[in-house]
Amino acid sequence: MAAFRMTECIRKTKNGIALTDEEIRSMVDGIVGKNGMEKIAEYQLAAWLMAVCFRGLTDHETAVLTMAMRDSGQTMSYPTLGTVVDKHSTGGVGDKTTLILAPIVAACGVPMPKMSGRGLGHTGGTIDKLESIPGLTTALEPERFLKLAEAVGCAVAMQTGNLAPADKKLYALRDVTETVTSIPLICASIMSKKLATGADCILLDVKVGSGAFMKTDEDAAELARLMLAAASADGKKCTAILTDMDRPLGYCIGNALEVEEAVRVLRGEEKGALSELCVTLAAELLMMAGKGSLEECHDMAEQAIASGAALDKFRAMVSGQGGDASIADDLTKLPQPECSRVLYAEKDGWIAAMESEEIGRACVTLGAGRMTMEDTIDPAAGIRLHVQLGDAVKSGDPLLTMYAQSEQKLDDAVQKLNGTIVISEERIAPNPLVHAKYSNA
Amino acid sequence: MAAFRMTECIRKTKNGIALTDEEIRSMVDGIVGKNGMEKIAEYQLAAWLMAVCFRGLTDHETAVLTMAMRDSGQTMSYPTLGTVVDKHSTGGVGDKTTLILAPIVAACGVPMPKMSGRGLGHTGGTIDKLESIPGLTTALEPERFLKLAEAVGCAVAMQTGNLAPADKKLYALRDVTETVTSIPLICASIMSKKLATGADCILLDVKVGSGAFMKTDEDAAELARLMLAAASADGKKCTAILTDMDRPLGYCIGNALEVEEAVRVLRGEEKGALSELCVTLAAELLMMAGKGSLEECHDMAEQAIASGAALDKFRAMVSGQGGDASIADDLTKLPQPECSRVLYAEKDGWIAAMESEEIGRACVTLGAGRMTMEDTIDPAAGIRLHVQLGDAVKSGDPLLTMYAQSEQKLDDAVQKLNGTIVISEERIAPNPLVHAKYSNA
Repeated sequence: MAAFRMTECIRKTKNGIALTDEEIRSMVDGIVGKNGMEKIAEYQLAAWLMAVCFRGLTDHETAVLTMAMRDSGQTMSYPTLGTVVDKHSTGGVGDKTTLILAPIVAACGVPMPKMSGRGLGHTGGTIDKLESIPGLTTALEPERFLKLAEAVGCAVAMQTGNLAPADKKLYALRDVTETVTSIPLICASIMSKKLATGADCILLDVKVGSGAFMKTDEDAAELARLMLAAASADGKKCTAILTDMDRPLGYCIGNALEVEEAVRVLRGEEKGALSELCVTLAAELLMMAGKGSLEECHDMAEQAIASGAALDKFRAMVSGQGGDASIADDLTKLPQPECSRVLYAEKDGWIAAMESEEIGRACVTLGAGRMTMEDTIDPAAGIRLHVQLGDAVKSGDPLLTMYAQSEQKLDDAVQKLNGTIVISEERIAPNPLVHAKYSNA
Repeated sequence: MAAFRMTECIRKTKNGIALTDEEIRSMVDGIVGKNGMEKIAEYQLAAWLMAVCFRGLTDHETAVLTMAMRDSGQTMSYPTLGTVVDKHSTGGVGDKTTLILAPIVAACGVPMPKMSGRGLGHTGGTIDKLESIPGLTTALEPERFLKLAEAVGCAVAMQTGNLAPADKKLYALRDVTETVTSIPLICASIMSKKLATGADCILLDVKVGSGAFMKTDEDAAELARLMLAAASADGKKCTAILTDMDRPLGYCIGNALEVEEAVRVLRGEEKGALSELCVTLAAELLMMAGKGSLEECHDMAEQAIASGAALDKFRAMVSGQGGDASIADDLTKLPQPECSRVLYAEKDGWIAAMESEEIGRACVTLGAGRMTMEDTIDPAAGIRLHVQLGDAVKSGDPLLTMYAQSEQKLDDAVQKLNGTIVISEERIAPNPLVHAKYSNA
């Protein structure tokens, strides 16, 4: 084997020459200082990342990079659980699907033990949402996590330990060198972690739109294609759903607010787009796990809600994680805000656009999210929308209610919300929520 | 003034948006930690450098960057000397023009105090060449350097102190991140140092060819154009000559060998291409310094050689720097090699190609150059060519003689020289030595 030279890797990528598998593996070893490789200087990695932004990587390079990053740290497996499923979203505003999806598939006999992260910036994190439930912890020891997954079928633990440390290192570097927006690098980042967590079937929710990393269907399809190929290379089933990001998902944004909305969906009280999406996603997971045809799995998921079985799984998961499961029956037991304010429509018309990224940022201002990992969050803060894309409104109708700990925060958020909900005098048909679906099966 | 953010600069350059003058100046301050700027992380600079390689910089950005880098450290001036000239070569094999040129122009009344560097890799450095003269030092204190320039008109000192430290930092980073080959960055690197050394008229010798940074006349012309613009922005006269790099310059490569050849040219014994080039370059410098028309200056330079005045200046410079000036009259006083070996032509024909970069590398193997700044060099080592591009040869004619301290080094160098001198059965007209000339006057 030739001695590894990072300058040679930079030169090749810069000139559009594919790296060898050995070079990619050595580079990833060098990112974390593993297998006898000296640590690669961050400035060399940064130059390589920028070259990738301009030149891309081949599909094969992307798959090899993904696998090498997966193997850069600990990898998990669930030999006692049978076929295990997982879901990943590329980051939405008001995206509480995990809270609904995991109980549904668990109720249908498919375990979904989930590692998740905290929110940063305008998108929330499942961990923060769950932790708004009094008493609940997501800091689960591996043994407790596994026991809960065995007993209940679902559990959500804060991602800890040493999963794909090469991604952690690279991501931190991409974040400060303007090299985040490269589709092969995004693929390797997402899939290295997903493949390390050991699920057999993976559902990817790829957000598309002005507020998402993927601005166009073409880019999102390209990312999906690369992620499916990486999953195939690891022998995993994988389906990617492209969903519309040009709107928040559901009516609630904010931690306790989203738990409330998830509970309402699991109770069968909310039958709208969010509920439909969760059933659709659950059906995909169940089908990948071998539970039947897509139609059968769809019925199964609907039945899990209708029968109360999914809500039971939610209760069991919450109490298994030390939380107060009675919130599922009395939503007022969730944290309540100090102040609230309603914003009203200023004219008649139809809801033509909702700037979900800006609405997400307003929620951060209200206290529902954090700009840096050191910020603390207010579990009760957030926004409840009273309208959805395409709805008809009249002047004076309530558009949304803001919740926060102080009037000052409400004032600040009003500034950010200015113009985020666009009312058109002509009726505009919104994009469908699901744009496309791709699968490697 | 908005707070400086390096990520914003990277983003703009990556997306082909020009940086503001303020952003460029703040960035350069941040490279060296000047004017209250925090030091910019090397990984951010590396990412920006790679983005420049793909997107380039505008002419205005390049000039602003060059000036900001010039101002990143000490700048020099020679108020007692009148109009001062300087020359820069982008790096040739066997390029001893400074040793010939400085005495010629000094003999014509134009001072050329020169800062120079050591050689690295396959190109030699003027400092190393001069230091092969017994007793000579180039570590001249500023005061001694200035006195010598005043008294003799020429002096060559090792570049010390704090000239364009931002370039030093950026160059070190470019070297290990494969970002050397960007024309705007090359311009800023060369011109920031040249403008900081305070000459009024600058002659740039831009090498073109397979062994040079600039592979084509188009790239070399683009570099020349940018460098002239940067000089204009600083109010300096500047001329760029594009010269052929597809051959070594003259017959000798190696430190003492090149001093010997320079002396022979100054003595008027050598009348070939090297001598002609030096007279041409000297004429350009003299004309820029206001000594007359190009034709008049050309005659003046020839006369300086013919009269012995240039050789006298060489002797005065050598003894002023503590060296043994009698080498100019007895070349055997220069360091002599232990071993030598001749390589012969294997067939009849014409010299069709000389791989100057490979010949330069063979000289490093012989001991004449260094691969790292810690290597020591053998002043007597090197190669004496017996043929030039286009010459007719017969099988058995000597092509070159190698000189080194050991037979082993001669053996090693033979390997590297294999195939570097190509004999063709058909006569091929070599490119002219001077390809083009550009001037900002």
